[in-house]
Amino acid sequence: MVRIAYQGEPGAYTEHAAQEFFGAKATRKDFLPCPTFKSVFDQLMSGAADHGLLPIENVLAGTIHPNFDLILKHKDVHIVGEWDFQVRHCLMAKRGTALADVQVVRSHYMALAQCKNFLERHSLVSEVAYDTAGAAKQIQGENLSNCAAIASRGAAELYDLEILEEEIGDIAHNYTRFWVLSRKPNGCPAGAPAKTSIAFAFDNHTGKLYQALGCLALNNIDLTKIENRHIYTLTAALAKDQATALRWGYVFYIDLVGSVKERHVELALESLRLKTEYFRILGSYKSHGRASIDQRAAGE
Amino acid sequence: MVRIAYQGEPGAYTEHAAQEFFGAKATRKDFLPCPTFKSVFDQLMSGAADHGLLPIENVLAGTIHPNFDLILKHKDVHIVGEWDFQVRHCLMAKRGTALADVQVVRSHYMALAQCKNFLERHSLVSEVAYDTAGAAKQIQGENLSNCAAIASRGAAELYDLEILEEEIGDIAHNYTRFWVLSRKPNGCPAGAPAKTSIAFAFDNHTGKLYQALGCLALNNIDLTKIENRHIYTLTAALAKDQATALRWGYVFYIDLVGSVKERHVELALESLRLKTEYFRILGSYKSHGRASIDQRAAGE
Repeated sequence: MVRIAYQGEPGAYTEHAAQEFFGAKATRKDFLPCPTFKSVFDQLMSGAADHGLLPIENVLAGTIHPNFDLILKHKDVHIVGEWDFQVRHCLMAKRGTALADVQVVRSHYMALAQCKNFLERHSLVSEVAYDTAGAAKQIQGENLSNCAAIASRGAAELYDLEILEEEIGDIAHNYTRFWVLSRKPNGCPAGAPAKTSIAFAFDNHTGKLYQALGCLALNNIDLTKIENRHIYTLTAALAKDQATALRWGYVFYIDLVGSVKERHVELALESLRLKTEYFRILGSYKSHGRASIDQRAAGE
Repeated sequence: MVRIAYQGEPGAYTEHAAQEFFGAKATRKDFLPCPTFKSVFDQLMSGAADHGLLPIENVLAGTIHPNFDLILKHKDVHIVGEWDFQVRHCLMAKRGTALADVQVVRSHYMALAQCKNFLERHSLVSEVAYDTAGAAKQIQGENLSNCAAIASRGAAELYDLEILEEEIGDIAHNYTRFWVLSRKPNGCPAGAPAKTSIAFAFDNHTGKLYQALGCLALNNIDLTKIENRHIYTLTAALAKDQATALRWGYVFYIDLVGSVKERHVELALESLRLKTEYFRILGSYKSHGRASIDQRAAGE
């Protein structure tokens, strides 16, 4: 049994992503729904959960910075996997409701934002809910008429709601990338397509990033993501001893192709570490492959 | 007279940012409120507006990717300025309303998300509105009782609402960075502290980014922002002729210190252009200075 903590109610998109990632190894009874992202980390650190599943970027919304901050704050958490999940928004209501009867739509604010065109076209009032599945649960639990939820197909089944319309998102190819978290780093097999995520910071001077990337380039390491984040938003997230980091200005965050078990990656990261004031390997894990998303997009 | 297009109702945060940026050069009658970010570009391109003001990143939410996509799509738009605006969320309702009377709070979904702790502490229902000032306008216009809006102090004054609570955001130092747009590049004075924003893409191979950054580093150019974005979300935004860009995989987006009128910047960008399949100078403009934000944060 693998106990998996995630933010949201049963039926949340994250739960579906967990089902896809863990497959037969996890059933609904192994899921620990949590009210906040922070509580996902709490469940993980207390030992109540073996894994946490955390959305880290969405192709429409970009990087989910607060979750990145939470990972930096929790030094003993490791990324042990990733999963690209296709978000398919459905509109659902109590059985017997027609789309024309619906006046109010509840969902997570991000889901509402991603279905803006649909909501405007039907002149629907938007109400923010705790999360997508939470909205579905409320409609059934509070026996709400004239009210619909935007949530997953699975949430409609779980809360016995009727799907009024499928794929109502403004843009197709709406993918969310999840990280699978653990208290211990995993045994990412050398040879399997792998990714490694790192975060680092240094005293800012011109060309320092160029030098840092040189450690990777000269070892033939390819990047799949690079982003910097102003440190001053992180100081609240970082522990006191790290707060002197304010002077760094930026934290850089990189995903690279390869596993820390590969010698060239190990060498590159050791050289990079020497150039930084703050350096952390967030995790080395089997790549689910953005490439596959690009291929899907290209093929459609 | 400078006519300025922005997304939102009169009294929106963006309007306040415009007032700060343009100062005495612009009064409320020069502002063109627009329903969507896209319509800001439409007003600008039709000549109805001289400038557009566009939020591009928020310290909590990160980069506002859809607006970055819109800029890439509009080849003839130039960034001519930037402004860091401190967002101070206020709760407002009809005069005579007590906080205890409020049941529902309306605002833009991002403002609701940024005041989550406050809303939970007072068990308030969140409703999504068009924008922050639009929510304030609705409360006055529709004479709503037991309903409050989250918006700016200026919106409360404009729509004659009473401020029930100030600074209700979860996190202080909530800054949004705006870009000022124009149909023609500006005459950013050489010597004044300047920034230049660029976007580029190339056929992906290992070390290409390192080489690209070398063009900047070897000319002693400092970066203030670097981010890559999967091209496949951009293809919808890019014109047909650019859509073959799918094979690039990524577009890189960089803010650097310096003006295109400075010789070393000009040289660096020309060498960088030679290494890329897609290259665009988005604009060169007077720096408002993230540094000043960092200093404010450090000093508080």
